[in-house]
Formats: sequence, C-alpha cells, structure tokens
Amino acid sequence: MRKTERFQSQCQMQRQREMARGYVFLLPLLIVVLTLATGISSLDNGLAPTPTMGWLHWERFLCNVDCEEDPHNCISEQLYMQMADIMAAEGWKDVGYSYVCIDDCWLASTRDANHRLQPDPKRFPSGMKKLADYVHSKGLKLGIYQDVGTYTCAGYPGSYGYYELDAQTFADWGVDLLKFDGCNFINLDIMIEDIKKYCNHWRNYGDIDDSWGSVKTIIDWTANHQSLIAPVAGPGGWNDPDMLVIGNFGLSRDQQMTQMALWAIMAAPLLMSNDLRNIDADSKALLQNRYVIAINQDPLGVQGQRVSKLRNFELWSRPLAGGGFAYAVVNRAEIGGPQKFSIVVFSLDSGKACQKECLVTQILPAFRFQGIHVLTSVLEFWVNPTGTVLFTVFPHSTGSSRKVEALSSNMDRRSNL
Amino acid sequence: MRKTERFQSQCQMQRQREMARGYVFLLPLLIVVLTLATGISSLDNGLAPTPTMGWLHWERFLCNVDCEEDPHNCISEQLYMQMADIMAAEGWKDVGYSYVCIDDCWLASTRDANHRLQPDPKRFPSGMKKLADYVHSKGLKLGIYQDVGTYTCAGYPGSYGYYELDAQTFADWGVDLLKFDGCNFINLDIMIEDIKKYCNHWRNYGDIDDSWGSVKTIIDWTANHQSLIAPVAGPGGWNDPDMLVIGNFGLSRDQQMTQMALWAIMAAPLLMSNDLRNIDADSKALLQNRYVIAINQDPLGVQGQRVSKLRNFELWSRPLAGGGFAYAVVNRAEIGGPQKFSIVVFSLDSGKACQKECLVTQILPAFRFQGIHVLTSVLEFWVNPTGTVLFTVFPHSTGSSRKVEALSSNMDRRSNL
Repeated sequence: MRKTERFQSQCQMQRQREMARGYVFLLPLLIVVLTLATGISSLDNGLAPTPTMGWLHWERFLCNVDCEEDPHNCISEQLYMQMADIMAAEGWKDVGYSYVCIDDCWLASTRDANHRLQPDPKRFPSGMKKLADYVHSKGLKLGIYQDVGTYTCAGYPGSYGYYELDAQTFADWGVDLLKFDGCNFINLDIMIEDIKKYCNHWRNYGDIDDSWGSVKTIIDWTANHQSLIAPVAGPGGWNDPDMLVIGNFGLSRDQQMTQMALWAIMAAPLLMSNDLRNIDADSKALLQNRYVIAINQDPLGVQGQRVSKLRNFELWSRPLAGGGFAYAVVNRAEIGGPQKFSIVVFSLDSGKACQKECLVTQILPAFRFQGIHVLTSVLEFWVNPTGTVLFTVFPHSTGSSRKVEALSSNMDRRSNL
Repeated sequence: MRKTERFQSQCQMQRQREMARGYVFLLPLLIVVLTLATGISSLDNGLAPTPTMGWLHWERFLCNVDCEEDPHNCISEQLYMQMADIMAAEGWKDVGYSYVCIDDCWLASTRDANHRLQPDPKRFPSGMKKLADYVHSKGLKLGIYQDVGTYTCAGYPGSYGYYELDAQTFADWGVDLLKFDGCNFINLDIMIEDIKKYCNHWRNYGDIDDSWGSVKTIIDWTANHQSLIAPVAGPGGWNDPDMLVIGNFGLSRDQQMTQMALWAIMAAPLLMSNDLRNIDADSKALLQNRYVIAINQDPLGVQGQRVSKLRNFELWSRPLAGGGFAYAVVNRAEIGGPQKFSIVVFSLDSGKACQKECLVTQILPAFRFQGIHVLTSVLEFWVNPTGTVLFTVFPHSTGSSRKVEALSSNMDRRSNL
C-alpha cells in the first residue's frame, strides 16, 4: 500500500446521541484493515503528535448534493479545490490547518464493476486521484469519509465486506486521512483505553451543530466524563469533541471565543466546518490566532480538564510544555454584563507554575501581558456572559522571561514541518 | 397631578415563567391609580400611538448595586445620565428611541418620614427630580419602575398601600413612564382584552435573557398565542415580548437580525437593554435601521402574526398602512448553510398587495429593491440558519412607485414629534 506512512484514521461513533457513554464505537474488522496498513498490532503511524488541524465539510455543507440548484455549495470536487486554494493562499496552512476533509455524500450510489468505491461521477468528474493530487499540489492533505457498516449514515455504499479493498483504494488515490463512521452496523463498544491503538482521533459524543446549545452540551459532556477520557489522550491519539463551527451563523462573538479556547484546552482536533470563501474577519482572526493554536498544539500533549466551578464561572486548566499552564475562565451566565473573576495564583494548580515568579499572559479575548506575579498575587479578569478569558501562566526567570514566546515558536516549528 | 398627559404605564407580569398563560397580571388598585391619573375609566392618555421606543436597564445591568466594585455599571444616576447623553448625541433619539427607563433596584430600602418613596441616597445623590430634568434637557423622557406588591421583585419597598402617593411622587418628579411589576402580591389574572384599558403596553411572558434560546422561546410563545393576543394590540396598547438584547453577548449577528425583524413584525415596544457606551457598529446599525423601525412604528398599528411553517422556515406577515405588508422569513435550522425560500406572490396574504403590480423590497439582512412583481411572480430568498429575511410588498402604481419611501417618511414624522 502506497503512502501508508501518511495514512491517518479518524474513528467516529454513530451520530445518535444515545450512543454517548464514554466509549467509542469501532469494530474488529476495522482493526484488521489498519493493522494491514501499518504492519503492527497497534496504530504506530507517527501521525498526529499534536491534534489534527484542517477543514471538514459536514456541519456547514451537510449532504447537499443538488448541484443544479446550489452549484456553489454542493458536495463536489470544486468545493474541496476551492477550500484548498484558500487554505493555501489565505494563511490557514501557515498556522497549521493542513487537512482538507470530505465527509459523507461523496460516493456514487454503487461500487464499480470491480467492487471498488467510486465517487459520484457528476460531482467528481475528475476522480479522487486527481483531487488528491490537486490538494497535495497546494501543500495540503486530503481526508475522506467511509462507514464501517453496509451503508454510510446518508445511505451511500458502506465499507462492510470491503475493508481491505477500500483501504487499498484510498491509498491508491493518495488519500491521507480516513474518517470512519459507525452507521448501519451492529453496535460494538470498545473501551476508550483501547481506541488509541487504532485511530489518531475519535469522537465520543453526538454531532455538533451551529448553536451555543450544542457547544455547551459538548463542553458539559466532556467535563462530566473527563476522568475517563482525558487520560487516554496524548501524542498520536486525541479525543475529538467535533468540528469548530466558528465563522457560521449560530455563535456570538463571545461564544466563538469560548469554543476556540475550550478546544485548545481540550487538546481537540481543530477541524473547521465553515465556508472559508466567505468568512468574516473576526472569525478568521480567531481561528488563525497563533497563541490559541499553540496551546492546542502544545507538544506535551496533555488534555486539559475543568478544575472548578464557582457560581457561574468554570475554570479549565491544561499543563503545557515548559512548566506552564493554560487556563480558561468561562462565564456561563446568559444574562447581564461582564463579571469579575478573581483568583489567587497559588490556587492555580497549587501554584506549580509560580514557585518563584511567573509570567501571566492573557490570550483571549485579546493578547495582553499581565505582568510578573508571585504565589500570593490575585489575578482579576472580567468575563463576558457566554465568553471566555484564556490565559497562560509560565515560570519566570531571567533566562526565560517570555515563555509565551515558546508557544509561538512551537507553532512556527509545526507550520514549518 | 402634574404632567398627567405625559404619564405612560407599562404593566408587567411577574418574572416567573409559570405565570405565562396568555393573561396579564394586574390588580384593581392599580386601575384606581391610573383612573385617578387620567380621570376616566379607561386609559385614554393619547400615548403610544405606535410602540414605545427607548432603553431599559434590566437585562444588561440587572440589580447591580455595588458601586464600590463596579462604579461604571451599577444602578446609579450616572448610568441613566450617560445613556441619555448618548441617546441624544449618537442618533438614537433621532430614530425614535426616546425613553430612558429605570428598572428595579433604584430605591432606598425604606420610605421617607412622609412615606414617600426615595431613591438610594448614595447611588442617586441628586434625587429623581434632577434626573428627570436632566433627561428632559436632552429631549428624552424618563421611565421608572415600581411593583404592585409589598416589595419589588428584588426586595425594595413596593407600592402596595401607597398607590396614590407613589403616583403623585412620580408625577412630582416629572417621570414620564411607569413599569409596574407584579411581584409579592396576591395573584389576580385579568383578561387580555381588558388590559388595554389600563396600560400602554404589557408583558405576557417571562423575562428575556441574552440567548437565542430565550428569543426563540418568546417567538414561539407569541406565535402559539397569537390568536388571543394579537387582536388586542393597536394604537395606545401593545403586547410586549420584552427587551431587545441586541448589542450584548449572546446573539449571533443573524440571531440579532431575527430579533429585530420579529419585534418589528410583532409591533413590539423597542426597549433596548444594552450598553450604549460600548456597542459594536453592526448592532448599532441594526438597532438604528430606519426601515425596520418604520415597520415597527407603522401607523396602521396592526400586530403581525406567523402565517405558515414550512420545513424549517416560518413566514410572518404584518399589514402596513398604504396597503402593503411586511414579511419575515425565519430559518429555524441550526445547522448547515443558507437555504432558499421560494414563494409565489399570490400566496402572500392572497396577493392583496399585488392586485396589479407590486414593489418588493428586502429590508434585512440588507436593503435591496427586488423589483416590480405580479401575482404569479416567484420570490426567492436565501436565509441563513437562525437568521431572517425581512421584506415588504407594496402595491405599485405610477403614482406610488416607491411605497417603501413612505415607511421612511412615517419614521421621519415620528422623530420630528
């Protein structure tokens, strides 16, 4: 199989919310496919040392296959080529978004005479190999979608019975990532501790939609199951709370910042689902914020957790390389004005990042050095309703006075890969 | 009682949602007060020929009385003076927002030696007469808050037992509007058909908060009870779905447009609760949109209603002076991209506005003449998830080719009053 070393799998549970139980859905035959691909018994493909970043069509474009009525937005090769063009040209690739990912509804209704998968011929007239080549020519990678069952969630031919053939087909086309869905198959739960052997990231919960209600539900589910799922995450395998919906229609500016900040704290894959051809400047700046991305991509690879709830505030913490921490203070109120959150430094992870002195830097809603502090310093932030203040605390010494710069340089190293 | 002719009452049910049953809460003693004020048995004060427009502190500033901690945002005379300054200076008054309204938490904890109400002396050191004079000097009007019961909702002295004295006090101060709440009193429902005799506008449902969930719930409640409440509305008395929360933290841009469009269709009082000292340009432009305001303030004074639901779309219609109609198409989807709504003109109120030809004008999300149409024309609009397209249809003839201009001139007449 060609390009085995580049093949990344995203394993995904079914879209039914009642499936969410802290387990992920996968099947033994999928394991066979992946072990064939890598030649070892666990997923050791060297990929996803930090959470995957890219673009995925589902939340924004769904199963829009009506290219007569809506040629600009239907699921077609043109859509992915346009996204690739923009990701390469408008700074997305530079900050780390490297995967252009197809979701459901790209397939023809039947396999070809040799049982191989084929894309819808009208919507993908050039074929998938050409599309992969095009995406690669832009310095990006192509993701594709299939389902472990007899049909995909939208009713297109599934991979059941054809796992090896389909893996070979994707490899022949030059596909770099597979999102493997779980519709239309006998349910089979596997323990989350095992999932990392087979996938580079995996969904634990239902699909996101373009609403604060949905984002809140995912944040709450993650916090409520963090003792189970967070320890499993790390380089090579990540919990996936689903797509970033920033740049669409349903989130306020503050809610967008909360999604971005929490996805960074949670070490979540950053897979945008939006229309990069038509995105407002604020959303673009937020999605391309190098400091937030650097927290998400921190090389220590530890998933952050919610560490306290106080009135309407939640405090989330993520340890970072270099002995620092990132903190998100979420104001869950949905009424009134900004509220003040005060905390003494020694109550932030027992003051680990501040044994002598520490440098505090606000990242969101705006970048701002907050000065050098000690264990007894009181930090104060005003947090908007449904908004978040994201900040970092790094040990301070004469030799490392600006550890936040390390975040940026981590980011730059990554984008130079 | 001085200034009786200027005294406007806003009657308000309690803040408990379980009270919402299509009735409004009011008590006979309030009626006595108001009949004393006007000298007749029904409210015939000549006020509110169109829905009241102004600013009300509650949703944004709540019962923030901590002026030590938060001097800029606490309930104090400074807050209302600043809002009055800005309403006069930054275009708000020019488009019709004329009432600066105080909500709960302005009172001292006790009445004075003569049993008269008195404001908190630290937060309103100049007294209410001075504040009213200041607001009037800006060409604006002052609204105040009290409660029919023994205490206000926040626990300050209520009007129970002092209705006549309190009415006289407000009149002595030069207050122009009373929001009369319903906490801490024996419940007494009165039929909505009767409420217009006593109040210029009245709440039917629970308090709004700064979220799309809240706005949706109010829209749904109104639609589900429209056959009961809409016919009661008209010049002099209006159903109040509660404050505009545009310019705060919880609504996306599209959701803000939906609130503004629906409040216009529903002939709702436009009482903003936001911080006019710090509001983004998009929110300001939306709140000051003269065309939307003109629909809200249409002199025919008929409350619009939801006329159909089709898949995720809702169509709302409001008849306007001049034989035209305003329509709002709401996309209630919370996933995906913009969706196309198509409708043939003769299915818009049986084509009443288009017996020969009609002029169609999109008002939101952007102003755009849509051309001259006939009964068989098909209109098409792309509507964002959680967003709304607001448009008008006016009969077209050579003598009245631009009826939408009439909307503006209605607006201009109003602002010149």
